[in-house]
Amino acid sequence: MDVYGVDPVSIYRDTDPIPEDTQQVKGYDFNQGVNYKRLLRSYIHTGFQATNVGLAIEQINQMIQKRKEPVVKKTGDQRKCSSLMGCTIFLGYTSNMISCGIRESIRYLAQHHMVDVMVTTAGGIEEDLLKCLGPVYIGDFSLSGKVLWDTGLDRIGNLLMPNSHYKKLSNWMMPLWEQMLLEQNTEGVRWTPSKVIHRLGKEINNPESVYYWAYKNNIPVFSPALTDGAIGDILFMFSIKHPGLIIDIVEDITEINKLALTANSSGMIILGGGLAKHHICNANCWRNGADYSVFVNSGQEFHGSDSGAKPDEAVSWGKIKKEAKPVKVFGDASVIFPLLVAETFAVQAMENA
Amino acid sequence: MDVYGVDPVSIYRDTDPIPEDTQQVKGYDFNQGVNYKRLLRSYIHTGFQATNVGLAIEQINQMIQKRKEPVVKKTGDQRKCSSLMGCTIFLGYTSNMISCGIRESIRYLAQHHMVDVMVTTAGGIEEDLLKCLGPVYIGDFSLSGKVLWDTGLDRIGNLLMPNSHYKKLSNWMMPLWEQMLLEQNTEGVRWTPSKVIHRLGKEINNPESVYYWAYKNNIPVFSPALTDGAIGDILFMFSIKHPGLIIDIVEDITEINKLALTANSSGMIILGGGLAKHHICNANCWRNGADYSVFVNSGQEFHGSDSGAKPDEAVSWGKIKKEAKPVKVFGDASVIFPLLVAETFAVQAMENA
Amino acid sequence: MDVYGVDPVSIYRDTDPIPEDTQQVKGYDFNQGVNYKRLLRSYIHTGFQATNVGLAIEQINQMIQKRKEPVVKKTGDQRKCSSLMGCTIFLGYTSNMISCGIRESIRYLAQHHMVDVMVTTAGGIEEDLLKCLGPVYIGDFSLSGKVLWDTGLDRIGNLLMPNSHYKKLSNWMMPLWEQMLLEQNTEGVRWTPSKVIHRLGKEINNPESVYYWAYKNNIPVFSPALTDGAIGDILFMFSIKHPGLIIDIVEDITEINKLALTANSSGMIILGGGLAKHHICNANCWRNGADYSVFVNSGQEFHGSDSGAKPDEAVSWGKIKKEAKPVKVFGDASVIFPLLVAETFAVQAMENA
Amino acid sequence: MDVYGVDPVSIYRDTDPIPEDTQQVKGYDFNQGVNYKRLLRSYIHTGFQATNVGLAIEQINQMIQKRKEPVVKKTGDQRKCSSLMGCTIFLGYTSNMISCGIRESIRYLAQHHMVDVMVTTAGGIEEDLLKCLGPVYIGDFSLSGKVLWDTGLDRIGNLLMPNSHYKKLSNWMMPLWEQMLLEQNTEGVRWTPSKVIHRLGKEINNPESVYYWAYKNNIPVFSPALTDGAIGDILFMFSIKHPGLIIDIVEDITEINKLALTANSSGMIILGGGLAKHHICNANCWRNGADYSVFVNSGQEFHGSDSGAKPDEAVSWGKIKKEAKPVKVFGDASVIFPLLVAETFAVQAMENA
Repeated sequence: MDVYGVDPVSIYRDTDPIPEDTQQVKGYDFNQGVNYKRLLRSYIHTGFQATNVGLAIEQINQMIQKRKEPVVKKTGDQRKCSSLMGCTIFLGYTSNMISCGIRESIRYLAQHHMVDVMVTTAGGIEEDLLKCLGPVYIGDFSLSGKVLWDTGLDRIGNLLMPNSHYKKLSNWMMPLWEQMLLEQNTEGVRWTPSKVIHRLGKEINNPESVYYWAYKNNIPVFSPALTDGAIGDILFMFSIKHPGLIIDIVEDITEINKLALTANSSGMIILGGGLAKHHICNANCWRNGADYSVFVNSGQEFHGSDSGAKPDEAVSWGKIKKEAKPVKVFGDASVIFPLLVAETFAVQAMENA
Repeated sequence: MDVYGVDPVSIYRDTDPIPEDTQQVKGYDFNQGVNYKRLLRSYIHTGFQATNVGLAIEQINQMIQKRKEPVVKKTGDQRKCSSLMGCTIFLGYTSNMISCGIRESIRYLAQHHMVDVMVTTAGGIEEDLLKCLGPVYIGDFSLSGKVLWDTGLDRIGNLLMPNSHYKKLSNWMMPLWEQMLLEQNTEGVRWTPSKVIHRLGKEINNPESVYYWAYKNNIPVFSPALTDGAIGDILFMFSIKHPGLIIDIVEDITEINKLALTANSSGMIILGGGLAKHHICNANCWRNGADYSVFVNSGQEFHGSDSGAKPDEAVSWGKIKKEAKPVKVFGDASVIFPLLVAETFAVQAMENA
Repeated sequence: MDVYGVDPVSIYRDTDPIPEDTQQVKGYDFNQGVNYKRLLRSYIHTGFQATNVGLAIEQINQMIQKRKEPVVKKTGDQRKCSSLMGCTIFLGYTSNMISCGIRESIRYLAQHHMVDVMVTTAGGIEEDLLKCLGPVYIGDFSLSGKVLWDTGLDRIGNLLMPNSHYKKLSNWMMPLWEQMLLEQNTEGVRWTPSKVIHRLGKEINNPESVYYWAYKNNIPVFSPALTDGAIGDILFMFSIKHPGLIIDIVEDITEINKLALTANSSGMIILGGGLAKHHICNANCWRNGADYSVFVNSGQEFHGSDSGAKPDEAVSWGKIKKEAKPVKVFGDASVIFPLLVAETFAVQAMENA
Repeated sequence: MDVYGVDPVSIYRDTDPIPEDTQQVKGYDFNQGVNYKRLLRSYIHTGFQATNVGLAIEQINQMIQKRKEPVVKKTGDQRKCSSLMGCTIFLGYTSNMISCGIRESIRYLAQHHMVDVMVTTAGGIEEDLLKCLGPVYIGDFSLSGKVLWDTGLDRIGNLLMPNSHYKKLSNWMMPLWEQMLLEQNTEGVRWTPSKVIHRLGKEINNPESVYYWAYKNNIPVFSPALTDGAIGDILFMFSIKHPGLIIDIVEDITEINKLALTANSSGMIILGGGLAKHHICNANCWRNGADYSVFVNSGQEFHGSDSGAKPDEAVSWGKIKKEAKPVKVFGDASVIFPLLVAETFAVQAMENA
C-alpha cells in the first residue's frame, strides 16, 4: 500500500514452473567462427521467423523420410495407391519463383524427382521456357515504367524481362499448337494443361528447364489457368487463324484430386499464395488434410484472403490434418527457400551419394 | 562555424517556391458536425491512403463519364468495337470479396450493368451460389481450426462457412453437369468457364446472386481456373460416374483478349491480387494498356509478385497506358470498396434517377 | 466406395447447429441509395476489417459512455482517483498522424477535452507546431529523393514538408529555450517533456494546434523521446551556446503510470505502433490492463515487434484486462480514424448539442 | 491486320540492347552440392530480396573497409573528429532484436568493438539485463493471452518471458538507483540515458550482456525513451520513496548529433523501425546524410510512417547522402541479420585472425 492507495508491486506475477525441456532462446555465437551449418541449426532457437525456418526444415525432412518408407497395404485395404512412395510431395509456387533464381532450386527438385506433383500459374510455366530463349536481368524496384516501356523491358520487381523474348516464344510455340491441333483432330488427343506442359517440356529439350525434367521424370504439373499470360496470348493469335484447339480443365482436376486422395501420406511445400496455394490445399481436402505442410509467403490474414490464411485456417477446412504440425514461414522465398533446400533435399542427396 | 568546426545551421535548406495550386494537407474538421459527404471529400487532401481513396474516386468517376460517351468511329477505322460504350470497365476480385459483404456491392454493379467484364477465381463463383443455399456467418480470426473442423465450420478470415452448404451445392449442381454433358454430346456445345458461369447464374435464378445478374445482363465472367475449388470437386465426383464433360479455356482467352483489344477505351477496377488482377491486366496489353485503373489490395512489391506490383510496374508491360493516372489504394477492400461505390456508381445512379 | 477405393463424399461434413443470434454476413445494399450512416452501420456484418471497424466503433462508444459515469467510491476504498471521469481515455499516435490530416481529428478531440492523456513521438509534437508556421503539401510516394533534396522539400510518404519551415521553427523556438533555461536556473523549474509540450502549446497560441488545446484543457501529453527530431536538433544548437538546460524523463514516467494506476477505468485508442503504442500499454500494466482498447495500425506480428503485436499478446502482459474485448483494425488510420471519430465522439457531441 | 481490325502482333516490342555487364538472374545450382559460401554469394543474382541481401553484404563490407582507413586531415580542416576511425558505424535495433537470438550477434559486435554508436528502445536495454537473470523461452505465436497471464508468462511473438524475471530485475536495480541518486546529489552527476546504460552494463558484469561490452569498449548507447518499460516502472516505484533522481535527455541529443556531425564518414545499420531508425537517421542529417546505409525491416511506406519509409525518402531529408547506395532488405532480421554478420564482420574477423 503506497501513496496512491495501491500496491504497485502487484504488477509482478509469479511464474509457474517451466517444463525442463523447454527450448531457451539463444542465437548463434560468432565467437565460434562462421560455421554455416551450425548457424542454420541455431535458427530454431533464435526466435521469430528464424525459429519457423528451423521448424520448416524439420517438417520437410519428415516428408522426405516418410516418402522413403515402403508402402505396405493393410489386409483388406481397397485403396488404390497413386504412388509407390510413402509420401506424395506437392510443390506449389507462384510465377515470380520462376522469374527469379528460385527456378534453379525448383529445377533441381524436378531433375532428381524429389517431388511428386507440381502446381503453378501460367507465368510459372512460360517464364521457364522464356529463360531457355534468353536471359532475364537484375534491375531495380524503382525503375520508371515509362522508360522501361520505351526500351522494351518488362519489370518483375527488381528483375527485367526483355519484351523481345515474347516474340521468340511466340515463334517457337506457334508450330507446336499447330501440331497439337492436328493430334487433337486426327488422334483424338484431349489436351489438358498438364498434358500441354509435359509437351512443352519435351519440346524445349533443355536441361535448364524445370518442365523438361518434369516431362522426363513424369511429374504431373497442374496449371488450370494456363491461358492467363503469354501462352494464352499466343493461343489467341493461333486461334484466330486456326480455330478449334481445345484445352480441357475437367480431366486435370480429376487427376490432381485422385493423386491426393490415393496418396499414402502427403506433404505440401508452397511458395507464395493464390492458385498455387489453394489448388494444392483444396486437393488435399480429399484425404481430410495433408500430413506435412510448409508455407513460405508474406501474405497476411486480416483481409480474409486464402493467400494470407495461416495453416490453422486450413485445418478448419480439412486441407491440413488436425494432428499435423504445419509451418508457415513469413518471408520472401527468394531468401528462405534456398536455405530450406540446402538443409533438406540437397543435404540428404549428398549423404546418400 | 562553431565549437565542432562545422556550422550546424547548414542542415537547413531553402525551399524553392511551391506552385500556388499545390494542394495543402488538411483533414476534416469535425467542428462542422458529421457531414459524411464532406468528410469523404476531405480524404483527397488528408494524405497517405486517404488521398489515394480520393484519387480512386476521381479515377472511377472518369471511367463512368467516359463510358457514357457515344462511340464515334473515325473515317477509315476498321477496328471492330466490342462495345457500344465509350469505356469498357473490367471488374476483378478475389473470392474473399464474395465471401464477405462486398458481394452485395458487386451484385449491385452487375444488376445495374455498371461494369462490362468480370474476372474472378473459382471461389468467387461458388461462394455466391453457396450464399443462395444458406448464410455465411461472422466469426473470429482466432477460432481454433481443430474445433471448427469438428463442428463442421470452415473459416475464411473472420467468417464461418457451414461445411454442410457444400453438400447442398453438390446436390444442386450434379443434375446441371448431367444436362451440360448432354448438350455437349447432342448439340455440340463447347463449354467454357464463362459459358458455365452464365448457365449457373441462370439456374440459380436468385436476385441476390451476382451471376444471376451477370447472366441477365449478359456480362461475361471469366474464371479460367474454374475447377480450383468446390466446383472442381463436384466435377471430379461427376466425372467418375459420367466421364467426358469438357470445359475449354482456349475460347475464353480469345474472348477476353478480344474485349480488351476492341474496346473504345478501358478501365480496370481490381480488388485483391492473383489471377483476378493478372488476367485483366494481361488482356489490357492487347490495347497497349488500360486508360483508367484502380487497384485495391494490401499486396507488397518486395517479393516480386504480380499481386503486390504497383501500377508503375504494369506500365512497363503495357498493361496500363503511359499517360494514365492509375491509383492503388493499400487497404482491405471490405472497408474501402463500399466508400468507392458510394462516391461513384451509386451516387451517379441517384443523380440520374 | 468408388473406383479409387475411397468414398469421395467423405469430404462433406455435417455442421452443428449455429446459435440463432449469430450474425450473418451481409454487405450494404446500394439499392437503398447512398445512406452513409446505414452504410457504416453495415460494416459490422460485412466481414474482415469492415467488421473490425464496426467493433472498434462499439468499443470507443463504450469508453465514452463509461467516461460519463459518475465516480462512486466504494467504502474503504483508499485508491486516489486521478480523474473525476469514469474512464480515462489514453490517445496514442505516431508522428505521421500529425503530418497528415488526422491532425484535425486529434485537435478536435483535444479541443473538446474528449480524451484524457496523450502520447506521441517528437515528430508528433513538432509537426503540429510546424503546421502553424506554414502548410504541408500533398505530393506523391514516388517523387525522387535527390530532386526533393535539391528543391528543399522533405518527403513524408505522399506529403511534402518544406524544409524552410524548420528554420522558422528554430527561430521561434530558440527564445523559448532561453526562457525555460532561465526559469530552471532562477525558479527551480524541473522541465520534463510533458511540461515542455504544454509550454510550447501555450506559446504557439493557435487554435489549429493540438497542443494549444492540450495546454488549455490541461491534458497531459507524454513524449519521453522528445529530443528525437527537430526539437532535439534545436536543443543541440541551443546547448552549444547556452549549456545547462535539463529535460528530465523520470518525473513523466511517474506521472503517466500514476494516471493509469489511479484511473477508475481506462481505455486506449492507439494509431500506429512504436513508442506511442508501447508507452500507453505499459502504463496500463499498473492497473492489470486497460478495460477498453482500440488499435489501428498495419503492423504484423510475425517478427515479434510490439508494434505489430495483436491485443491478445498484450493480455499476456497485463496491458489489457483478460475480460476485455479489445479490437485491432488493420489499416491506414488516415482512412479509418475519421470514420471512427464520426461514429463515436463527433456524433455523440452532436446528440448532446 | 486481322479479323478484329487490329494487328495483334503489335503487343510485342523490340528491346534496346542490354549493356553487356548487366547481371543475369541465376539462382544457386544445388548440383554443386551444399556450399553455403557460394550459396550466399549467389543471392545477389537471385533477384528480389535475395538480391538485396547480397547488396546489403556489399554495403556493410564497404563500411568496414572505410572504417579501417586512416583518418587524414586536410590542411586547414578545422573539423573536430569524433573518431579515429574512417567510418563511424551506427547500429540501431528495436527491442525484439534483444528478445530473440539476434542479441548474440549484437553482443558479438559490441564485444569486438565493431560498431561505434548504438541506439535502441527501453526494451532493448532491459531485456538484455533480464536475460542475465534468467532465460527467455521459445513459445508459439498462438498461445492464449489469458492462459499465459494466469501462468505468469509474457509473450513476445513466439517467445515467452517469465514475468518473475521482472521482480528479479527490480530487486537488482533498486540499489543502483539509490546509488545513482546519491552520486547525483553528492557529486553532481547529471545522469542521461547513455550514462545510465553504461552504468547498468558495468554493474551487470556479465560477458553475455551487450551493455557489459558497450561499457567495456566505451561504445555510447542512446535510448532517449529509456523510461518506456520496466526500467521506467522500477524508477516509478523508486521515486515514490526516493524522489529527486533526474535523467536528462538534452545532453544525449547533443552527444549523438555531435558524433554524426564530426564523423569522418558514417554508416547506418538499422534493424526494425520506430525510434531506433529515426534517431540514427535524424542525427545523420547533421552531416547531410550517411554515406552507407542498410535497413532490415518489414515496414511499409503506404501509411507514411518513418518506420516503413524507403531509403529514398531519407535522401529527401538529408539523412542519407544523394550519392549513396543505401539498401533496404524487407524481411525479419531474425533470419536476415545472422547471414549479414556471417558475410561481413565475422568473416573479416576470421580473415584477420
